[in-house]
Amino acid sequence: MSWPSHGSNPQYLYNELGMALPKVYLDFSANINPLGPPEVLKRNWNHFYEEMMVYPDPNAANLKMIIADKEQISVDSILVGNGGAELIFLIARMLAGKKVLLVQPTFSEYETACRANGCEILYHQLKEPDFELDLNEWHSKIKEADAVFVCNPNNPTGVQYPHSTMMALIEECEKHNCQVILDEAFYDFLSEYDSVIPTIHQYSNVIIIRSMTKMFAIPGLRLGYLIAQPETIKKLRPFQPHWSVNTIALLSGELLFQEQSFIKKTQEFISKERKRLVDLLKELDFIVSPSKINFYLLQDPYINDQFLLFEYLLKKGVIPRHTYNFPGLEGRWLRFAIKSVDDNNQLLEVLAHWRHLHH
Amino acid sequence: MSWPSHGSNPQYLYNELGMALPKVYLDFSANINPLGPPEVLKRNWNHFYEEMMVYPDPNAANLKMIIADKEQISVDSILVGNGGAELIFLIARMLAGKKVLLVQPTFSEYETACRANGCEILYHQLKEPDFELDLNEWHSKIKEADAVFVCNPNNPTGVQYPHSTMMALIEECEKHNCQVILDEAFYDFLSEYDSVIPTIHQYSNVIIIRSMTKMFAIPGLRLGYLIAQPETIKKLRPFQPHWSVNTIALLSGELLFQEQSFIKKTQEFISKERKRLVDLLKELDFIVSPSKINFYLLQDPYINDQFLLFEYLLKKGVIPRHTYNFPGLEGRWLRFAIKSVDDNNQLLEVLAHWRHLHH
Repeated sequence: MSWPSHGSNPQYLYNELGMALPKVYLDFSANINPLGPPEVLKRNWNHFYEEMMVYPDPNAANLKMIIADKEQISVDSILVGNGGAELIFLIARMLAGKKVLLVQPTFSEYETACRANGCEILYHQLKEPDFELDLNEWHSKIKEADAVFVCNPNNPTGVQYPHSTMMALIEECEKHNCQVILDEAFYDFLSEYDSVIPTIHQYSNVIIIRSMTKMFAIPGLRLGYLIAQPETIKKLRPFQPHWSVNTIALLSGELLFQEQSFIKKTQEFISKERKRLVDLLKELDFIVSPSKINFYLLQDPYINDQFLLFEYLLKKGVIPRHTYNFPGLEGRWLRFAIKSVDDNNQLLEVLAHWRHLHH
Repeated sequence: MSWPSHGSNPQYLYNELGMALPKVYLDFSANINPLGPPEVLKRNWNHFYEEMMVYPDPNAANLKMIIADKEQISVDSILVGNGGAELIFLIARMLAGKKVLLVQPTFSEYETACRANGCEILYHQLKEPDFELDLNEWHSKIKEADAVFVCNPNNPTGVQYPHSTMMALIEECEKHNCQVILDEAFYDFLSEYDSVIPTIHQYSNVIIIRSMTKMFAIPGLRLGYLIAQPETIKKLRPFQPHWSVNTIALLSGELLFQEQSFIKKTQEFISKERKRLVDLLKELDFIVSPSKINFYLLQDPYINDQFLLFEYLLKKGVIPRHTYNFPGLEGRWLRFAIKSVDDNNQLLEVLAHWRHLHH
């Protein structure tokens, strides 16, 4: 079986399973804000049409100034990218041939990008069902590695690692000349969060990746940024193609940084809806990962092979994210995005029916 | 002086020269179709807004099927990219550390991308003012090189190399195990053109790059594709980030392949307007490169340092492309895009005034 390596684009999943994609379906496999994009994008959409006829600013000067201002850092500490995925590939290019440590299960692109660039890959395996990060368990591996990728909050578990753990990790890595890449693609869904960005003033080994496509529901546009010391930016920049970030993404980004109340509203909705969902799912005897954000892992303890549940859902037009390509999960969990109340209720209904059949 | 490495984004040019960007200006530095994008994009623009909320198809399946059908090749022979620039960087990544031959003057990204990937760079220098490609002159260099980049029609000269020369180049390179990268970013502006795409059925060393941003005036969207044997595509693909091509570019591309009459109309306009312009420029005693497409090089034989003319034009709000970063030109020429009749007339007027002062 050649599983699609990511969620979204469910046609590839159904094709692989020899099933027909239903005309009506609910896609829980992409972790996108269910509130949709903020109004400001719709209002500016026709203006973007005009701007599309001009080359993008290859330096993303306006967007970088806005980010620098918000995060209280220098513009030289910022690299804007064609989505987080491009930034991961630029880092992997910089790390070509090096030894890279991954905390599994996690976002699969770190490994894909590092392998494409001939890196040697080491794993630290988190333990289900809590998937917590205990630094004491992998001290020795940090000594060995040239770089470590940590996704916080983690994809696919939704687990948030404490700020103190991140700080300890950064210090430990600095001691051993190991680069720390903190992927914060989902940080803005967290209700409580202490920024690690100030660490770049002190530590030369920290790289922070941010994404704008999840919170603002613009995965089709591609926009992310990376924060590190200027010396690191200077090493990464030559690998990035000219005009890599399209004009519409750049202009959207400039507007979206003003949308603080939209972010707040999203956090409140997600937090409340996650609590409601998790309670109901536990009532149905499902195991759910201790997520702090807009997706979670789910497992049915009554069956050995979760594929049965996966297939059942797909037949009903309810599409979770499989976990076959997450080392340490290997399909034993399914990942679901938190969508609208209506959509989540439909999921609950299908799961309740499944539970009626399997208990 | 740190010259901007490309046209467009004139703020960087004026900044570098310590000049203020005029409120009203005419930018001749970007080689974009003066007819603007085809109507079909405007008609679909609101639909694109909805589609932006979904991840792009990472395989660009629909667009590849359309290209495959048009060019009579297999979908496995196609790689869709985030503009031609990304495709150049993917090729350079594949060639990391190798010996690469460039035919100068040419598009500067080949060298930038290859140097970023530690390649050794060799030059073959074309002779002004005709900038023709005589294969006999650089046989020996092909033997030495692992790959050669040729831009046809060439940027910045606008010169089209004959099909027979391209075929001879491909054969010669195949003999010496040298990869040939043919960048055809502007091929669709040519009135007469014999496709080199059928060569991929016979030769494993050919890579053809195409761009959709120039003809369709969508440089802000970023869209290009690459054609080669499936084995070559398989080598390049792992270096490309997931979802590299945004949804709007993909959907636009699918629609734009239907716009054959728009291409025809553009070719006719450009051909007629170029003839008119070149005749008038020659009457004003300027030297013009023998371009077959939508831009040309210009030189004033009455002055030694073309910077005087460059500066004069910038002060008038008429923006050419400098050629300081084109080896073999070093600022001795200025490049102009062919724009609308009105815009070109304004350029002629300013140049006539300049000629009145300098003869």
